[in-house]
Amino acid sequence: MLDINEIQKISMDCSMTEFVGTTVLDTIGLVIPGVNDALLQQMQIDKPYKSLGLLSSRTGAAGQINAADEAVKSTNTEIISIELPRDTKGWGGHGNFIIIGGYSVSDVRRAVEIALEYTEKYAGELYISEAGHLEFTYSASASQALNMAFDAPIGKPFGFFCGSPAAIGLVMADLALKSSPVEIIKYMTPNRGTSHSNEIIAAVTGDASAVKNAVLTAREVGLQLLISMGSYPEVPGTPYL
Amino acid sequence: MLDINEIQKISMDCSMTEFVGTTVLDTIGLVIPGVNDALLQQMQIDKPYKSLGLLSSRTGAAGQINAADEAVKSTNTEIISIELPRDTKGWGGHGNFIIIGGYSVSDVRRAVEIALEYTEKYAGELYISEAGHLEFTYSASASQALNMAFDAPIGKPFGFFCGSPAAIGLVMADLALKSSPVEIIKYMTPNRGTSHSNEIIAAVTGDASAVKNAVLTAREVGLQLLISMGSYPEVPGTPYL
Amino acid sequence: MLDINEIQKISMDCSMTEFVGTTVLDTIGLVIPGVNDALLQQMQIDKPYKSLGLLSSRTGAAGQINAADEAVKSTNTEIISIELPRDTKGWGGHGNFIIIGGYSVSDVRRAVEIALEYTEKYAGELYISEAGHLEFTYSASASQALNMAFDAPIGKPFGFFCGSPAAIGLVMADLALKSSPVEIIKYMTPNRGTSHSNEIIAAVTGDASAVKNAVLTAREVGLQLLISMGSYPEVPGTPYL
Repeated sequence: MLDINEIQKISMDCSMTEFVGTTVLDTIGLVIPGVNDALLQQMQIDKPYKSLGLLSSRTGAAGQINAADEAVKSTNTEIISIELPRDTKGWGGHGNFIIIGGYSVSDVRRAVEIALEYTEKYAGELYISEAGHLEFTYSASASQALNMAFDAPIGKPFGFFCGSPAAIGLVMADLALKSSPVEIIKYMTPNRGTSHSNEIIAAVTGDASAVKNAVLTAREVGLQLLISMGSYPEVPGTPYL
Repeated sequence: MLDINEIQKISMDCSMTEFVGTTVLDTIGLVIPGVNDALLQQMQIDKPYKSLGLLSSRTGAAGQINAADEAVKSTNTEIISIELPRDTKGWGGHGNFIIIGGYSVSDVRRAVEIALEYTEKYAGELYISEAGHLEFTYSASASQALNMAFDAPIGKPFGFFCGSPAAIGLVMADLALKSSPVEIIKYMTPNRGTSHSNEIIAAVTGDASAVKNAVLTAREVGLQLLISMGSYPEVPGTPYL
Repeated sequence: MLDINEIQKISMDCSMTEFVGTTVLDTIGLVIPGVNDALLQQMQIDKPYKSLGLLSSRTGAAGQINAADEAVKSTNTEIISIELPRDTKGWGGHGNFIIIGGYSVSDVRRAVEIALEYTEKYAGELYISEAGHLEFTYSASASQALNMAFDAPIGKPFGFFCGSPAAIGLVMADLALKSSPVEIIKYMTPNRGTSHSNEIIAAVTGDASAVKNAVLTAREVGLQLLISMGSYPEVPGTPYL
């Protein structure tokens, strides 16, 4: 039987070869060099990779998906799957669980490292108050992760905005679309596309400046409405937009 | 880039035309005067309204649905959709996201105002302890919102009771049905009808006194069982039943 | 109307005949001696029982399912249903809601008593940190509950391991399967088999020593990875493996 005192002796400085790193939003990055065959079969992956990179957070979705997008853009890897658990540690949104595949361990390890770095950056557009939260992300050129999660056209500008409680997200979407000539490519609600999160999510594409403007409008609207609920949001990073 | 200090300068006293108000249970009421066409198409609303009223909370479902029911009863508006995100800010239940449609902004604004007022009243029958929660609602005459969410016969008395952890809700339902000649019209569980909440939900109809009696029995049972778990519930409002 | 001061007068020492007991993880055990006919019909139980035993928790799934397994093994009762709400009081996992059926109240009451006792024991293999959680369970001989929930072969050794955030659970599964000649019988992810929890869950069968070894490997791996996220887990019981 495990002596409970032994737990405290385990180092926070993990030395396992599978460990890549951790970052904000309770995010961990891991690699599986050559996944067990029986497990691989259960996972129902329809791609030939045996080296897997994993990015997994309790809080945040779009930021980490955008971070994974950067990772696959600059390494010889591919997104295998993106899942959005209903999480956020008691808030109304998602966490994320992203699997990246590659032919070599060093490729997927590098991809996970990049994803962790960008997760820290992109966490700058997450705003969490006592009442709810807002999330934004922007990419000048969407790649495979944003395409898989939000139907983003590959190589095109991509904007994402989301608000919770859900009604805030809908007004953000309405005013963002009215402010800018963008095309809405994804619309998600508690019952549609989400894991029953308390969010309205919208994703847009179009010219870079129009997409960016739509995201900035959504942010301005979202902050006003979220703050009207009686508390100021904290930001787990530094706003980058 | 957003200067994080600018966030603190945003007033809690929201001046946006879309803003109607906020109330207990992290509830916000908003209006969209004339929804953007591309957004409207994504929303897949099969009704002709372009003025939308929104009621959205982190916590509570039956109370706000009953409040929306009062709103559509006394205004020229209609319920468009009711969604129940898995929320309650870390507890085992739902939040809500309700869209009300109308032909004029003033109609939907008035509906949202009424829904906010009744949300405060109906929050009086929500009981939240460290261990779980109970929710009750009663209507002498159900209208469109209660019908859409719980199959309530229009114009008839309606009672609702729910307990979490789920087992408490089942014993509440059993004893309420044994105590009173009511008809059970809705039964929801973690896997059936809910967004995987930790609740058993039952809704009943029948004669006014029988329905009320069933709700009161459910409340008496629920409070005893919830308190047996080791903590007393708080009430975000004032009990009205 | 309910006087709110009356609530404080309700005893925590519940005297209702339906009450069996409470234990760790916000778990309550209840019985319904002869369930109301209209309610029974709504419940869509396809078994002939009218005496129901209920085990229901805010936190934990495998431990309580294993506890219910022990209960049906040693009483004349049967599992009717197992549901896993998305709960854990703000963490990334499940609660549980288990219904046990029997022909007599004393049978189901005894079953619930046993399930409560084993819930306390099996809670010893739940580890909850600020960042996430791990859950393990082991049975030398699986019975009906473990079979229903995880396809465990009846009468065979059964092992279960789960980690959150999800990526931790996947590395646990990979290394457990590599460490021991066991067969994987269940694989669950945020989108597959769970209620959108932030977990990877794996269940295995095989020789007793191999199954136990797989669980111990998973625990060793899981603790290292969970602790790498920056906080030490607490255990709501005493580790028994």
